[in-house]
Amino acid sequence: MKIQPVRGTRDFYPDGMAFRNWLFARWRRASRRAGFVEVDGPVLEPLDLYTEKSGEEIVDQLYWLEDKGGRRLALRPEFTPTLARMVAARRAALPEPVRWFNISRCFRYERAQKGRLREFFQWNADVLGVEDEIADAECIALAVDSLVELGLTPDDVEVRLSDRRLLSGLIQTYVDVPGNDRAVVMPRIFALLDKRDNLSDEAFAEMARESGLSGEQQKRLARLMTWRTLDEIGSVFQQGFPPAPAGLQQGFDSMRKILGYGKDPGYLDAFGVSDWCRFDIGIVRGLAYYTGPVWEVHDLKGEFRALFGGGRYDRLLEDLGGKAMPACGFGCGDAVLGMLLEERGLRPEPEPAADYFVVSAHTRPVSTRTGAAVLHDVLAVVRRLRERGLAAAFDPKGGSLKRQMKKAADAGAPFVVIVPPHWEARRVTLRDMRSGDQRDVALDDLGA
Amino acid sequence: MKIQPVRGTRDFYPDGMAFRNWLFARWRRASRRAGFVEVDGPVLEPLDLYTEKSGEEIVDQLYWLEDKGGRRLALRPEFTPTLARMVAARRAALPEPVRWFNISRCFRYERAQKGRLREFFQWNADVLGVEDEIADAECIALAVDSLVELGLTPDDVEVRLSDRRLLSGLIQTYVDVPGNDRAVVMPRIFALLDKRDNLSDEAFAEMARESGLSGEQQKRLARLMTWRTLDEIGSVFQQGFPPAPAGLQQGFDSMRKILGYGKDPGYLDAFGVSDWCRFDIGIVRGLAYYTGPVWEVHDLKGEFRALFGGGRYDRLLEDLGGKAMPACGFGCGDAVLGMLLEERGLRPEPEPAADYFVVSAHTRPVSTRTGAAVLHDVLAVVRRLRERGLAAAFDPKGGSLKRQMKKAADAGAPFVVIVPPHWEARRVTLRDMRSGDQRDVALDDLGA
Repeated sequence: MKIQPVRGTRDFYPDGMAFRNWLFARWRRASRRAGFVEVDGPVLEPLDLYTEKSGEEIVDQLYWLEDKGGRRLALRPEFTPTLARMVAARRAALPEPVRWFNISRCFRYERAQKGRLREFFQWNADVLGVEDEIADAECIALAVDSLVELGLTPDDVEVRLSDRRLLSGLIQTYVDVPGNDRAVVMPRIFALLDKRDNLSDEAFAEMARESGLSGEQQKRLARLMTWRTLDEIGSVFQQGFPPAPAGLQQGFDSMRKILGYGKDPGYLDAFGVSDWCRFDIGIVRGLAYYTGPVWEVHDLKGEFRALFGGGRYDRLLEDLGGKAMPACGFGCGDAVLGMLLEERGLRPEPEPAADYFVVSAHTRPVSTRTGAAVLHDVLAVVRRLRERGLAAAFDPKGGSLKRQMKKAADAGAPFVVIVPPHWEARRVTLRDMRSGDQRDVALDDLGA
Repeated sequence: MKIQPVRGTRDFYPDGMAFRNWLFARWRRASRRAGFVEVDGPVLEPLDLYTEKSGEEIVDQLYWLEDKGGRRLALRPEFTPTLARMVAARRAALPEPVRWFNISRCFRYERAQKGRLREFFQWNADVLGVEDEIADAECIALAVDSLVELGLTPDDVEVRLSDRRLLSGLIQTYVDVPGNDRAVVMPRIFALLDKRDNLSDEAFAEMARESGLSGEQQKRLARLMTWRTLDEIGSVFQQGFPPAPAGLQQGFDSMRKILGYGKDPGYLDAFGVSDWCRFDIGIVRGLAYYTGPVWEVHDLKGEFRALFGGGRYDRLLEDLGGKAMPACGFGCGDAVLGMLLEERGLRPEPEPAADYFVVSAHTRPVSTRTGAAVLHDVLAVVRRLRERGLAAAFDPKGGSLKRQMKKAADAGAPFVVIVPPHWEARRVTLRDMRSGDQRDVALDDLGA
């Protein structure tokens, strides 16, 4: 019986695994440089950890099971709720601010498609305990630093940044959604904005109509979406924002501190990453827990989904039963990023499995007594190389020198060591596979 | 609502995660030195992948769920079936022998207890395509090399090795279990031997009786268990093994090649690891798929469960629908190994999160305009250090120099950089936290 892998999962053969390790090493390097420390939690979490904040609807998008005791366990769809649970559990003992990062396997039961898998990896970095927008800027700077590590430039990708309070306040006051309509209409508008990149202008207008907005409201929403900079918004509201809602001014001030305003530099300037970032009023983020600044990283050509999603979630810890704690962070999946790097020719060549491949010039089969002794000679050389910390391989079947040399070439090892038939002198031949040069060396000098 | 983690899972806070990374790095280093390349598969596999070989009983020990299409998906309890599936799927394209390793998160729905978790990590290494016992010896040598990497010695741990065909043949001929009893009695004896380390002599005798053995058979089984070396077995069967079963001779010869016999060195001698290894007739291994040599690594004091389990499984690929392919390998979990290293004082000290901690001698709060400017100065220094590849942290809240120095000490950074109130001269003070020495340096020379 031939068993097929599960749809939406991946098998990591050596090439794919080498890329995964390469990518993770860069994520780790950037994280550590920024003073973040690595943590992890379980894959199996109580289902409540997700339904608590997102409601029972989320159950449909998760893999979950009921254990023998009737407890509902989920495969984590993301790391942030685990992070919040872990911080809440040790709050008193943790030095603040908490700067944690994590690379975790996550699971979502969605339709599997290009760049959207059911089982994937996500890099998370979060700062907890800092109210000031410097923490949001730190996260964005870390994201940009990782993009630099991967060989990307501001010509490839950009960070698009907004603030939920700002957008929501503008919709309330400028689009003029009255109080008793908000609970129904606002989530529809947010959902609409979150999808707008995938919608034609007609489809967008159609959905705006269906969301219950009047003709005038639709016009104002469309105009609002054309504001490209904070300064533009500032000039519309020169006289100051209307007194309510309070979040409008707060959201505007947050963006000002992060992005800068007029002649004042923002935190992103201080981190030297402002060339990578721009204000984008339409950034909303789907997740329910964001409370302030939100941002995404997109490729400029618009070929792929968002590469990063991040934002501030100041209420999540409290909502999950902990003490209130300001927090912000981001997630970045491996699948879309991998496609972008592939498309830009930035995926690295895999490294050979071994530095040295050891062969024998003696050609008796291993099954004979002499053959076995020859293999012991080969192993003595292998052992010496490994003791020096070098990666050494050999062909366990032995056979003709030609056959072994072919195995060595297949393995891609840069050096081949040829053990002579009778090597009491403990000397071997070292062949440089790139140049083809061969020379005679004493075993004791090999790999030194 | 306070949410508790799932029983049998672990939260990896920074210390635990640092140990996990330290351990994985050593597993990877040893694997690569031995010419193994890393691979991975999904956590979610079809449940059939496990029931196919182990029967429906295994379902009870697995976490599994039914997806919306009625397909039964399991969380992998081990990596070997995934490996077999992956090799079978690309058999023609893979250069042989296949030497793969993997570090995977696995899941077992067992009673959670010390060293036995429901969610754990396992290091696997396997050689496929080699019939000769050299491949078994390679795996054992790799296991020993990893133990050396971790700081363990032959005074701490040993490899115990046997062969299923040898044991099974000896039970049939020497204990004299007749043909029509074998199907029932043999599995019982194997299960009994697999558990014997946890049984008193009385309990062992009691279970031997219950397994349906006669008094004479029990005596012979007990005597068989006292044979400590291959040479001892050889001397009992000086006249040669009885002609049937065939596996008896094959198993004996396999052990001879791996361990050596009389004056002939074995492969383990050639790898220089024979001091770590001994023959142990009672090693059986629980898993259904082993066909020849089987081995475990145990701590000599007998305080912990087996650290490694490995063996040959020449029929698994065929059983899972692939072409037949000889194969052997091992698995090593992180939990028991972690406990042993802890007990031996071999767990490393965690490294500090940052090399440099940057503070400001200017003490205005960040919320003021001057305070924000000071933070920008701090960030300029942080940025410079990070551009040099160094890990640099700072305290986003600022405040008094004393408060910031405390944060720096908490972070454990070996160096603190103090930015003066007015640093137009672009000079800073560098403090070595271990010696307490301070000196004045130009920003451009920092971290160079």
